[in-house]
Amino acid sequence: MSRTIPDVAPSPLRTLYWPVEPEMARVEQLLREQMRNRHAFVDELVRYGCLLGGKRLRPALLLLIAKAVGPIRQEHLVLAAVVEMIHTATLVHDDVLDEADMRRHLATVNARWDNESSVLLGDYLFTHAFYLASTLESTQACRLIGKATNLVCEGEIRQKGSRANYQLTEAEYLSIISAKTAELCACCGELGALFAGGDAETVEAMAQFGRKLGVAFQIADDLLDVQGDEQATGKSLGTDLEKQKPTLPLIRAMQVASPAARDALLAALEEPASGRRMLLTNLLEELGAIEYTRQTALGFAQEARELLADRLAPSPSRQVLELITDLVVNRSH
Amino acid sequence: MSRTIPDVAPSPLRTLYWPVEPEMARVEQLLREQMRNRHAFVDELVRYGCLLGGKRLRPALLLLIAKAVGPIRQEHLVLAAVVEMIHTATLVHDDVLDEADMRRHLATVNARWDNESSVLLGDYLFTHAFYLASTLESTQACRLIGKATNLVCEGEIRQKGSRANYQLTEAEYLSIISAKTAELCACCGELGALFAGGDAETVEAMAQFGRKLGVAFQIADDLLDVQGDEQATGKSLGTDLEKQKPTLPLIRAMQVASPAARDALLAALEEPASGRRMLLTNLLEELGAIEYTRQTALGFAQEARELLADRLAPSPSRQVLELITDLVVNRSH
Repeated sequence: MSRTIPDVAPSPLRTLYWPVEPEMARVEQLLREQMRNRHAFVDELVRYGCLLGGKRLRPALLLLIAKAVGPIRQEHLVLAAVVEMIHTATLVHDDVLDEADMRRHLATVNARWDNESSVLLGDYLFTHAFYLASTLESTQACRLIGKATNLVCEGEIRQKGSRANYQLTEAEYLSIISAKTAELCACCGELGALFAGGDAETVEAMAQFGRKLGVAFQIADDLLDVQGDEQATGKSLGTDLEKQKPTLPLIRAMQVASPAARDALLAALEEPASGRRMLLTNLLEELGAIEYTRQTALGFAQEARELLADRLAPSPSRQVLELITDLVVNRSH
Repeated sequence: MSRTIPDVAPSPLRTLYWPVEPEMARVEQLLREQMRNRHAFVDELVRYGCLLGGKRLRPALLLLIAKAVGPIRQEHLVLAAVVEMIHTATLVHDDVLDEADMRRHLATVNARWDNESSVLLGDYLFTHAFYLASTLESTQACRLIGKATNLVCEGEIRQKGSRANYQLTEAEYLSIISAKTAELCACCGELGALFAGGDAETVEAMAQFGRKLGVAFQIADDLLDVQGDEQATGKSLGTDLEKQKPTLPLIRAMQVASPAARDALLAALEEPASGRRMLLTNLLEELGAIEYTRQTALGFAQEARELLADRLAPSPSRQVLELITDLVVNRSH
């Protein structure tokens, strides 16, 4: 009921989740209920934060995997809300680190309020998520979520430690994004299958599926940062370059470039922000690094798809998971 | 074995904790073991963070209360490490918010590295703490810690929302610090008594003890920010004024001041940082606000002391808890 919280249309991606539509609606309801606070300023901040994670991809993954493996249970709904809160917490803190102004066509929390608000809101979301996870009967979910979230942070710190290190190997890069981005998706796969009563192999395969999907997603995201359209993505782009994050296009280019081309790349990285992105994209394109990155993302998506086919009986949920796998590597936003 | 982590003498306060000395040593060992990471940059950051929370007051409270109530168990050691990690996480994030340079005579993480490192390290510590809590058998500790930590964040956000509001009532101020600072101390009391097999009344009384102690501690801390000595405290002071936080000395002064004195106070708050602290301290002194604040802190400490006397049989642990209660309101650092 606040004047200041804008009305945001849900992401069109959400229509995809039709096999778990009633459950997604209950997760949304749960998020709305949980993301309230009796203190006005806290309430405003928390509700705004709740709008920023728009795709609801992680809850959908968790529920679709659950449904493809066994019955969806009350625990799944709680855990779906938990992973979305954790994801939102990391987004809000990322936006401080990236000094981003825009996300999902909305001003980021740091742009709308300030960095302090972002830090505190992220902490609020993390701790609320952990509290909510602890309302389940066993500590198993808390353990998996605690571990995964800690690995996400570890990945973020490693990424920061590799700032401006354009000699980073592809293997090291993959290991970092596997922690920073894919770990939470792996956790969604694991929790979805586990609480649906899946056997150990299925649980492990669904964790692997989430991990491959997450890696494919992050590589596609890195590509968007280099060559995406801000209008279409609804977020600030070029921030990886700005922040000197070595991402796959650049790592690949440095690896295959002649000494002269490498110097040109390093010089382009030093250019002022206005012309840098275009200049770099051209160099990366010439070196085949854009195409290589795209193929790498497709490769991980393919491996993810195979895990589904190997482990899950055909079902609408499996079909949608396959579709999502295709979409994350073929998106303009 | 890194060259970059300084060697810091433990806080002299630690000698106080003699009734639980062997257990504190095991907690310290546990912290040292847990605060390692196989990636060099993560390891360096995490180990440095571990040095910043020097007094180990919260683990000591938890263990002393446990020992005064019943036997100290393995769970207590884990929980003591957990609360210290959470406390350190909030310190590290506070130092970003406060733009502080110094803590425990050490450079803060944001001063030594940058704000990004602080945000990520705080997140790492939070999530690691939650993971560690989830290794216990029941979800009870996770629930209490999740709830308490979320209330801490809520309190921090409310404090931020009251920035520059010098009309804040004393009741509102007390409610904010009861969340922001005292909630984690209350949680230590509760966990200590609960896992030692205390009955419901004892558990509740020890939570109350922690809360009163925490409030007394925060009021004393607010007073130090106004009139403490940076050399003795080993941290940046005057940051509450800098950040326009309405703390008890100021709230009280605004409440009792004549209109003219109130104008003088507001004018003093606008002064450049160099002269402001001295000018304000004099005004606060004249208005009796310093003495009032001191008496309020003593009042909470007295109530805390009474809870100990009412609920705990005499023991060395109870004696030390009483001594700590006296010390938190009579300290120069």
